[in-house]
Amino acid sequence: MHFIQKLQEIQRRNESLLCVGLDVDPALTPSHIKSSSNPVLLFNRRVIDATSDLVCAYKLNLAFYEALGDQGWHILRQTLSHIPRSIITIGDGKRGDIGNTAERYAKALYNDLGFDAATVNPYMGRDSVQPFTRSESHCAFVLILTSNEGSSDFQRITLGGRPFYEKVLQAAVSWNAKKNIGLVVGATHPEELQPIRKLAPDMPILIPGIGKQGGDLESAVRYGCNKKGELAIINASRSVIYASGGKDFASAARKEATRLRNQILAYQEQYFA
Amino acid sequence: MHFIQKLQEIQRRNESLLCVGLDVDPALTPSHIKSSSNPVLLFNRRVIDATSDLVCAYKLNLAFYEALGDQGWHILRQTLSHIPRSIITIGDGKRGDIGNTAERYAKALYNDLGFDAATVNPYMGRDSVQPFTRSESHCAFVLILTSNEGSSDFQRITLGGRPFYEKVLQAAVSWNAKKNIGLVVGATHPEELQPIRKLAPDMPILIPGIGKQGGDLESAVRYGCNKKGELAIINASRSVIYASGGKDFASAARKEATRLRNQILAYQEQYFA
Repeated sequence: MHFIQKLQEIQRRNESLLCVGLDVDPALTPSHIKSSSNPVLLFNRRVIDATSDLVCAYKLNLAFYEALGDQGWHILRQTLSHIPRSIITIGDGKRGDIGNTAERYAKALYNDLGFDAATVNPYMGRDSVQPFTRSESHCAFVLILTSNEGSSDFQRITLGGRPFYEKVLQAAVSWNAKKNIGLVVGATHPEELQPIRKLAPDMPILIPGIGKQGGDLESAVRYGCNKKGELAIINASRSVIYASGGKDFASAARKEATRLRNQILAYQEQYFA
Repeated sequence: MHFIQKLQEIQRRNESLLCVGLDVDPALTPSHIKSSSNPVLLFNRRVIDATSDLVCAYKLNLAFYEALGDQGWHILRQTLSHIPRSIITIGDGKRGDIGNTAERYAKALYNDLGFDAATVNPYMGRDSVQPFTRSESHCAFVLILTSNEGSSDFQRITLGGRPFYEKVLQAAVSWNAKKNIGLVVGATHPEELQPIRKLAPDMPILIPGIGKQGGDLESAVRYGCNKKGELAIINASRSVIYASGGKDFASAARKEATRLRNQILAYQEQYFA
């Protein structure tokens, strides 16, 4: 199945543009499960069970798993295997390297671990992104404008009066022959999301930065969606999975995911009804 | 010890600017060791034993280890533990992410695995690089101009008549308060190495692209070194470790490493005597 079709189906079935980021931090694992044989994996499974009818995607930030040491890759794999197949999985590693190396990263993420999509860094150009787009069932989300402060260091440098990231966006659009390239645009840049969506009317846009990072949810929905009010993937990580640090962590995650999903639905109603 | 000091000491002791890239490919493992319990690790150990007096550094491309699945991180760690402490180790993952994520990557590479240095992607700006430069014993090698074809897509875009990568270079120089930032400049761009070295007279420059990628070794030495003929780190991967696919793979790797190291020494003699 084409990635876009899978994304649309789950966004419609779960009536949700919400993506939950499983950015696990062993230091924040609730104390009552710390004595289990694999607390991080147990935590993820409980969060997935509590939220999988409320999301369109899960995003797994690879850094958080690499930081777990030798067990990290195994926990990543076991977590992925617990996610229902109908839900999009995004390997958030922002990889980018020369062709033969990018092939390895793509193989590891898509073939070995089974992710549907990956985030990629565009700095090394077309041949560093291509290996992530070989199959139309996989999507490469290209970093355009990120949610951090440092995004102004290079992404916003002006080039003939236009920001550099627009050049990257135009390139990503031009590489999109199989319609399986997406964009990453931080929710902390609401005023820039609208012109980006105009230049890429049909591409999925992954929007991190909601929640702890303080991004603007209303703008993310209003300007991040396509004309049908779809194809934005709005990510919240810590604000959902660590909504409570106690025994009720799973139900607290569900509550916060429900709140975000319903808030998104309300904005969809408002702007796309 | 400061990273630069460690680098200078080993470059002088081994009289070598050569870095060997341990880009392991199970498909290329010599057949006579395939039946051992951990062929990839055995291969790496034999290559390290055969070359460690000829190099200043080993570069481990993380993609090749991630592609090994659950065992990858363990093999990475075991390989690192076999490298003599005096030799620089570079975790080549080209990571780059928002602050709290970059912290995880840095922790995984420096604290958990014990790398001396890491390659980082600058697209997300200063706060994505900073976590890799907290300790002066660690060095962050910032991608400036890479050896692949796609490097012209963005890195060479002109900005007020100057290439974009020069902007990145100026930023890297400005971030270098602790003198522990390095640069990555592909050997496939000899004509651009000289002006880059001029703008960064004292920074280590990691130069991949020698060997299979066809980069120019003479220019790498001539223009990549500082005024003392040092601080260039010239990487060759496949041409050394897969010099032979047979039983003599380790001695063939030694022979090719010796050839490269001596060729580099000859150019150092020629241009810096």
